[in-house]
Amino acid sequence: MPAPEEFVVTPYEVKGKIDYDRLRELFGTQGLTPELLARLHRLAGGELPPLLTRGIYYSHRDLGPLLDAYENGRPFFVYSGRGPSGPLHTSHLIQFDICAWFHRRLGVPMYIQITDDEKFWARSGLTREETARWGLENLYDILALGFDPKRTHVFFDSRSIAAMYPLAIRVARKITFSNVKAVFGFEGSTNIGLVFYTALQSVPAFWPSWAEGRAVPCLIPCGIDQDPHFRLTRDIAEGLGYPKPALLHSKMVMGLLGEGVMSTTGNRADDALFLNDPPKVVERKIRAAFTGGRATVEEQRRLGATPEVCSVWTLWRTRFAPAEAEFEEITRTCRSGELLCGDCKARLIERVHGFYAQHAEAREKVKDWAESTIVTVAPKPL
Amino acid sequence: MPAPEEFVVTPYEVKGKIDYDRLRELFGTQGLTPELLARLHRLAGGELPPLLTRGIYYSHRDLGPLLDAYENGRPFFVYSGRGPSGPLHTSHLIQFDICAWFHRRLGVPMYIQITDDEKFWARSGLTREETARWGLENLYDILALGFDPKRTHVFFDSRSIAAMYPLAIRVARKITFSNVKAVFGFEGSTNIGLVFYTALQSVPAFWPSWAEGRAVPCLIPCGIDQDPHFRLTRDIAEGLGYPKPALLHSKMVMGLLGEGVMSTTGNRADDALFLNDPPKVVERKIRAAFTGGRATVEEQRRLGATPEVCSVWTLWRTRFAPAEAEFEEITRTCRSGELLCGDCKARLIERVHGFYAQHAEAREKVKDWAESTIVTVAPKPL
Repeated sequence: MPAPEEFVVTPYEVKGKIDYDRLRELFGTQGLTPELLARLHRLAGGELPPLLTRGIYYSHRDLGPLLDAYENGRPFFVYSGRGPSGPLHTSHLIQFDICAWFHRRLGVPMYIQITDDEKFWARSGLTREETARWGLENLYDILALGFDPKRTHVFFDSRSIAAMYPLAIRVARKITFSNVKAVFGFEGSTNIGLVFYTALQSVPAFWPSWAEGRAVPCLIPCGIDQDPHFRLTRDIAEGLGYPKPALLHSKMVMGLLGEGVMSTTGNRADDALFLNDPPKVVERKIRAAFTGGRATVEEQRRLGATPEVCSVWTLWRTRFAPAEAEFEEITRTCRSGELLCGDCKARLIERVHGFYAQHAEAREKVKDWAESTIVTVAPKPL
Repeated sequence: MPAPEEFVVTPYEVKGKIDYDRLRELFGTQGLTPELLARLHRLAGGELPPLLTRGIYYSHRDLGPLLDAYENGRPFFVYSGRGPSGPLHTSHLIQFDICAWFHRRLGVPMYIQITDDEKFWARSGLTREETARWGLENLYDILALGFDPKRTHVFFDSRSIAAMYPLAIRVARKITFSNVKAVFGFEGSTNIGLVFYTALQSVPAFWPSWAEGRAVPCLIPCGIDQDPHFRLTRDIAEGLGYPKPALLHSKMVMGLLGEGVMSTTGNRADDALFLNDPPKVVERKIRAAFTGGRATVEEQRRLGATPEVCSVWTLWRTRFAPAEAEFEEITRTCRSGELLCGDCKARLIERVHGFYAQHAEAREKVKDWAESTIVTVAPKPL
């Protein structure tokens, strides 16, 4: 019998210090090899985003066959979703930034699901008005990351149900209560909306194949903790006559409070930078953020700091230092003791303010066409 | 501890010889008293249908308050549904005939639900094409019983989902897996569509109140075996701010094969007269039907027959002898031995042929407007 793991990663619980290689073994996923990265680099016209080069995305299922099909003239689409329980924070961008990169560089369509029904079912403290409102706010934020209105399709559950339901009916017959109990830890006290929900979450992965009447490959970037969920989607795909979606898994990133995986539930709003945080709040949160610095300036100058345990460095790494040269400079000078935490934070605050200002502008423009991306009509009756 | 009952009546199982008074006690429903019947008689302008006068409907929940409201200028609506697994048979009419009577005599709107999703989830042998096709065929049959297009509203699940889903989201949060497990006997192997389904089945009961933003009372005629189902609907009503639907319960009727409750599953197509049976088949089934007659003509002339155990008498009683005088004549001459089973059957065959011919004509006319009764638009977004 293998020794019990010291960490737990499921779609509903992440705890302990995660051994990511071991997790990949446990889940049975494939590593994102240098060969695959080189291939993506070539297909994208000689570019790879930091999220791929810096090891944030590190695991996958069936990415190879997906790229084979792409090279043979069968383009895939990317699919990602958001449960609108409140404002987005910068960690959420890890998922949507990579989608936007595929969308932009490989020219593939983007499908976004906004699960305003599911979040209402999952969080008894939220009203329908709230999940619907956050759904729209979150959608604006996502679209503003650089999606093309002509190639972006949104399933806003409560508003897209007519388009999704004929397919959801077929999906739901393939999934039992035992299946979802095993994956999500559901119990007798779970409401029947949440039990049903996974059928709707599988729909976008199959929808283009269903609509077009031919196999359209799908790529789902997600946190590795969501793998069991989409494993269920993969398990039922063939029985329905659709290709299994390929998956691209990211590691979980630490929050500003520096304790393992970012989590903003409870009184932990300071663990993340929300996209609607005013500049003053962004500044306060970054100033208070956990770093890998030393107890004193003198000590840090002498011994250097530890970027790997630093929440500020994580923000540079995942999003705010896209240029490799700058990221290397920050990492090197941090480690050497040249860069002090206070200066590093001041620099990040500036950078985040710049992004927020640019994002706010893009977000306003998006409002003109966001509604037009919401799918409301079923492509066929059955 | 009470002695175990010798019968079982649940929404998914009916067996044993049912003691209807005991069942009412067990379920905690109210008896349909002569006072209530007299009141209905008066409200309907001096008329009661055989289904009420002959004890087919015998139990209720909250019919009194429903009629109070009606008399105070707050009309209710009637709601009934059909799971389209195949053609309708004459037993199904017990439910829709009584709805048509309320609709016609009390002028109340009719809401019909066609559950083509649920039957696909419940019967692995049925395709979506089949449940959708039977849904439409069944709807034609129901509408042809005499519903007014202007006051009839149909929820055809797969096609009405956009109209139903915003309300279904709210309903589903109120019902747990344990609730549906207790009522329907669901297990781990039950698919998540079926688990979710009861939320959709509760929607029509609340829909007019939701749509109009005021309490609109609802009456659901159903077999007593369906009481636990709608008890769940009643239990959640107040938490959602809607009136509890009133229920009107019928007894289960025997089939042509004469064994307890009509059931056409398995190889039992001969237990019922399907509305799409050709005349020859109707004739064959009635000729073969179980009766309360004696072994020989001589014996029957001498001792008389027993209408209460007779499937042919049941058809006269529930639908085919609407005039009281004729029904009394049939019952009296059967019991006295004057009326022989062969003659009685010949007379019924004639009567059923007449109904089928008239029904086929009405059914053709219905096709012109059936589509217009299907609700497809939500009255509000949330």
